Amino acid sequence: MATILYDLCGEDPAVRFSPPCWIVKLALLHKGLDFETAPLGFTEKENYPDADYGRLPILRDGDALVTDSADIVAYLDNTYAERPLVATDAERAAVDFIGGFLGAYVFPPVAKRMFVHVHAAIRPQDRDYFRESREERLGMTLEAAADGVPDDAVAGPMAVLAAPLATRPFFGGAQPNLADYQVAGLFLWMRIAAPAPLFETPTALSAWFDRMLDLYDGYARGAPKAAA
Amino acid sequence: MATILYDLCGEDPAVRFSPPCWIVKLALLHKGLDFETAPLGFTEKENYPDADYGRLPILRDGDALVTDSADIVAYLDNTYAERPLVATDAERAAVDFIGGFLGAYVFPPVAKRMFVHVHAAIRPQDRDYFRESREERLGMTLEAAADGVPDDAVAGPMAVLAAPLATRPFFGGAQPNLADYQVAGLFLWMRIAAPAPLFETPTALSAWFDRMLDLYDGYARGAPKAAA
Repeated sequence: MATILYDLCGEDPAVRFSPPCWIVKLALLHKGLDFETAPLGFTEKENYPDADYGRLPILRDGDALVTDSADIVAYLDNTYAERPLVATDAERAAVDFIGGFLGAYVFPPVAKRMFVHVHAAIRPQDRDYFRESREERLGMTLEAAADGVPDDAVAGPMAVLAAPLATRPFFGGAQPNLADYQVAGLFLWMRIAAPAPLFETPTALSAWFDRMLDLYDGYARGAPKAAA
Repeated sequence: MATILYDLCGEDPAVRFSPPCWIVKLALLHKGLDFETAPLGFTEKENYPDADYGRLPILRDGDALVTDSADIVAYLDNTYAERPLVATDAERAAVDFIGGFLGAYVFPPVAKRMFVHVHAAIRPQDRDYFRESREERLGMTLEAAADGVPDDAVAGPMAVLAAPLATRPFFGGAQPNLADYQVAGLFLWMRIAAPAPLFETPTALSAWFDRMLDLYDGYARGAPKAAA
């Protein structure tokens, strides 16, 4: 049985912007595993291989069905020992630390600017669900949330992310590891679903993202973007 | 020739509060190296083994004289391969990331509250120098800086630091590594030079700090505190 990643998609099924789905795709590429992706929209839960879970990514790997990006990457390292995504306990702790940092300092302002673009990029039948669920979470309209984010909202966090990249090509060192894929997920979200860059990015960080786009025969660079 | 760490001290020469000096002491303990410490005050630069450098820590190790805590820990890992402080490139990147995070989000508010306590703890002849240099940096008196820090100033960053510790004892995983010593330096600064806790600390982080105090026969727990 093949390995299939069920991957959130836009109105164009080739447009795949979900950060946690990207973490898993880059992890599968890192492992050198053959996989297919299956596009699914936000609201077609009945077609999700685990409809009760109701979220993506979900990985089908032979007989195994694994949900949640963190559980999927742990499953991949446990099942396929070659080319570990994290090589030591301390690397795993660092991934958790960076994940917490992104969640606290980077994701909230980025999401506020992104949601209007995601809304425009997804299938028309998904838009009411998306708008209502996000506006309830934000306590305001998608448009008001986007307009309320200052241009320098992530300047400080971007500088913190850039610092370790001043002296090495990847968060993983000479080669990328799971920390790189975790940060790249957020940057790919912006690259694919927003029509133009949302925030200024420090040089060390944009050079790193260029390297990420080149990995695995330019897999991420070649990923279709939403129509502007 | 012995290994000597030149260590910043307070009015009581047994009181050692400097965060970068603590990083090096914990690194030396981690390595299992025999070392002595030599206490030096802020302004007795003429007694520093490298007076031109004019800062501490400085490590004398046989014929080698190494300045700057980051360079000292790199020297230790390069010179003594056993018990690495960081085992992989990715762990080194994580240390740089956490260092940048501490510098951007934790050190500034902590320092604003700490400087009045450091001023009280240091040698009388060092106090004018300390006050003038810090007040120039702050653009206000030490007292105004301390009073201006809200109680929740580091609540967000503390939560980010605590997250990876919810599922493992140390930032290094099952055992501490350089990331732990880096964070512990800041907490030991507060423990030793402030008369009472300055900020609320999440449970996972205070439990971690307790473990840090216990390491190496309770070396840090036994370190004398400044008189209240």
